[in-house]
Amino acid sequence: MVNYPNGKKSQWAAAAASAGKRGMDLEADINRTNLFYLDRDIAVIHKKPTPVQIVKVDYPQRSAAKITEAYFKLPSTTDYNGIYRGKYIDFEAKECAQKTSFPFKMIHPHQIRHLSSVLKHGAIAFLIVRFSEYDEMYFIPAVKVIDFYNTADRHSIPYKWFGENGYLIPSSYLKPVDYLQVVDKLYFEEGGNLSE
Amino acid sequence: MVNYPNGKKSQWAAAAASAGKRGMDLEADINRTNLFYLDRDIAVIHKKPTPVQIVKVDYPQRSAAKITEAYFKLPSTTDYNGIYRGKYIDFEAKECAQKTSFPFKMIHPHQIRHLSSVLKHGAIAFLIVRFSEYDEMYFIPAVKVIDFYNTADRHSIPYKWFGENGYLIPSSYLKPVDYLQVVDKLYFEEGGNLSE
Repeated sequence: MVNYPNGKKSQWAAAAASAGKRGMDLEADINRTNLFYLDRDIAVIHKKPTPVQIVKVDYPQRSAAKITEAYFKLPSTTDYNGIYRGKYIDFEAKECAQKTSFPFKMIHPHQIRHLSSVLKHGAIAFLIVRFSEYDEMYFIPAVKVIDFYNTADRHSIPYKWFGENGYLIPSSYLKPVDYLQVVDKLYFEEGGNLSE
Repeated sequence: MVNYPNGKKSQWAAAAASAGKRGMDLEADINRTNLFYLDRDIAVIHKKPTPVQIVKVDYPQRSAAKITEAYFKLPSTTDYNGIYRGKYIDFEAKECAQKTSFPFKMIHPHQIRHLSSVLKHGAIAFLIVRFSEYDEMYFIPAVKVIDFYNTADRHSIPYKWFGENGYLIPSSYLKPVDYLQVVDKLYFEEGGNLSE
């Protein structure tokens, strides 16, 4: 039993415990990976800020402007984009707590449309899905997600589909979500499934 | 003299009057242009949401989550990015009210660093500056801005420098800031100054 300063387990500790050693969520893990890519000058990929509709702002004297009323907006694009090896990179990332399937409603229809537009213009576009129960992260090329979306009759993607259509993303301490390894294999190696 | 419903000129009307026929600011004009590019499937380029540090959120029953305390954060990248003709596009846009020079402090040092990183990875990166007094918009390739930043001894760029180092951006009703016309000429036409 660990003792905590204020006598109770902090939220952080609870989250860390439930997520195991890694103790961070998918977004934090991707941000950390992107920071590594940026520091080593491997790629420039950032998460976009959360879109917010600002309604009211206070401008107190001698201190920073304070937003006092705002609302979350639906994102019209994916969360991450940037550049790698001269290519435009675009992706969305989702954490899935379910064991048997990924609920399609976690991706908005305009995000599907966005992926399909950037793909048409020559992007490397994909989806990252982490199944937390299995501690597995899948890289799914956007073309597969779009196909499923356009043809499937169901509201969720079975877990097994990810094994068949996706690629496991390797993880290390400095690069917890090392998706560029998958990008290299698929898009840049000769004979890579999606290389030109 | 125009009459206004509440007896006084609205902020909107004041802004519209001062900006002349167009009656919109640079950001709105670029967003409108980007929407045109998107609708015609010419390019997928978006403004990133304003980065905000969210501190407090209320979750009232039966209605949307309300952010009640938040602060503006400094952007760590530029405001706009996307894809055009297979290339990663990245730029920042600034409106300049001065007649004789553009104050360099309008661009953050990490935005300069960002432009210089994406450039190294093969981006088409630039700055758009509108001199509102002259109703002129300049396209400045990032390499020129970075050069000036690294070598110049002064805190502002003289207006005349823009004429010598930039390219005037054409404007039309549907494409108020038609910067892709300049991109085409510079980067894609044979003999374009910056084509490969």
